[in-house]
Amino acid sequence: MLSKNLTKYLHSLQLKKYRQEHNAFLVEGAKSVLELLAADFQIELVAVTEQFYKENTSLLDKQPFRIEIAAADELSRAGTLQTNDAALAVVKTKDNEFLYAAPGEYVLVLDDIRDPGNLGTIIRIADWYGITKIICSLTTTDWYNPKVIAASKGSFTRVKGYYTELADYFEQVTGVTNAPPHPSRLQIATSVYGTFLEGKNIHKTAFADTGYIVMGNESNGISSAVEAFITQKITIPRFGGAESLNVGIAAAVVLDNWRRG
Amino acid sequence: MLSKNLTKYLHSLQLKKYRQEHNAFLVEGAKSVLELLAADFQIELVAVTEQFYKENTSLLDKQPFRIEIAAADELSRAGTLQTNDAALAVVKTKDNEFLYAAPGEYVLVLDDIRDPGNLGTIIRIADWYGITKIICSLTTTDWYNPKVIAASKGSFTRVKGYYTELADYFEQVTGVTNAPPHPSRLQIATSVYGTFLEGKNIHKTAFADTGYIVMGNESNGISSAVEAFITQKITIPRFGGAESLNVGIAAAVVLDNWRRG
Repeated sequence: MLSKNLTKYLHSLQLKKYRQEHNAFLVEGAKSVLELLAADFQIELVAVTEQFYKENTSLLDKQPFRIEIAAADELSRAGTLQTNDAALAVVKTKDNEFLYAAPGEYVLVLDDIRDPGNLGTIIRIADWYGITKIICSLTTTDWYNPKVIAASKGSFTRVKGYYTELADYFEQVTGVTNAPPHPSRLQIATSVYGTFLEGKNIHKTAFADTGYIVMGNESNGISSAVEAFITQKITIPRFGGAESLNVGIAAAVVLDNWRRG
Repeated sequence: MLSKNLTKYLHSLQLKKYRQEHNAFLVEGAKSVLELLAADFQIELVAVTEQFYKENTSLLDKQPFRIEIAAADELSRAGTLQTNDAALAVVKTKDNEFLYAAPGEYVLVLDDIRDPGNLGTIIRIADWYGITKIICSLTTTDWYNPKVIAASKGSFTRVKGYYTELADYFEQVTGVTNAPPHPSRLQIATSVYGTFLEGKNIHKTAFADTGYIVMGNESNGISSAVEAFITQKITIPRFGGAESLNVGIAAAVVLDNWRRG
């Protein structure tokens, strides 16, 4: 059984304020917890059903964290999932470590993604397409929100996030200070792709070896501060009547075109 | 102000049973209602804020339906959106009309899509890529569910759905009775594409002029009854660690590859 205090602690981790205070976040659901156990995270505790414990004893007992046995409905009440199947964990957050595109690598950059479901979906898509680093604007929703972790379907264990002020970040990685206006942009060696309505057809875009792909806010797209660093505006061509695509869908289509080469 | 009876009627339309009884469904939100007004639907009534009415009087008054003026919070309480901005409508459902791929056309086929958000997203994606016909298995979630309509972002006005038993349907459109086992499948002239784990890399697939693209259930993929009619198994190549992609994401990537040709 989960103690009142523990349940209260688990509830508190639904709020960013307390996640930051405790440097900890929630991972919910048997599948996500199993992926977590196979990854490199510092786990504080797991709460699991007796059934889950029996099926995974060897995996659980070799690790140093606290283990609580609880009924499935207790886990549901303690967490955010409507039906928590069998397990949840409290995990230490990782440091906000600087990330950049190494030669031959692509990095995803998120400019003000507000919806946790979208961020989680994008982490999952990045993982599918073999991207392991995502740069997030400081206004992007919190990576450790339980909804983000749940929507990532375990991909949060393989993809890293780095939160930073994007204009500063691009100055650093592109070596350009006070981003110049349009013509001089062509002199920037680093390829920074961004989706715009008036960009180049992505079906006809040749992608450089190394690069950054920027996805913008759900309503407003890429901000002008970040637009200044875009070297290649790209567009997903439209053949019908829909006004737009969801940002997660757009990210998948862009990454698929990049990988298709 | 909305009468008690009207509010009760609006609430009832959240349930499939009452939508079927009244042959009517809900459209919520100013943007969706405006798209609706521009499309070919039989509208029963609209409930709008005074502000919305003032801004769209000419559009509203030329039509024969009943108009109710209500406060925004009344609209929220009457509908399913957490914040309904300014308008909702009650619309007559369309007949379940037989649809097929005309020469040069592609049609999307949904085999047991259960989540209303996924169905709505797929309608929106189909619309983006210029697909106007979707065939749904009888087990697919109801097209007229308010969550489907909302997630389609107005694309329900441009895309038609046809619900049918898929094996019967494919027998009809492919001319094949009692779908033969694997080798004879190659004799079927109609191209039916379906996503499978072990299919052909979609980046290397040449799409026929006319075809059906089948997307399967969120957990179980394409059913064996429908698999018998698939002439080309295709796969979205994976480059990283994620186990799967959401069905809406997969649909977008497949359609983008088809359109890229």
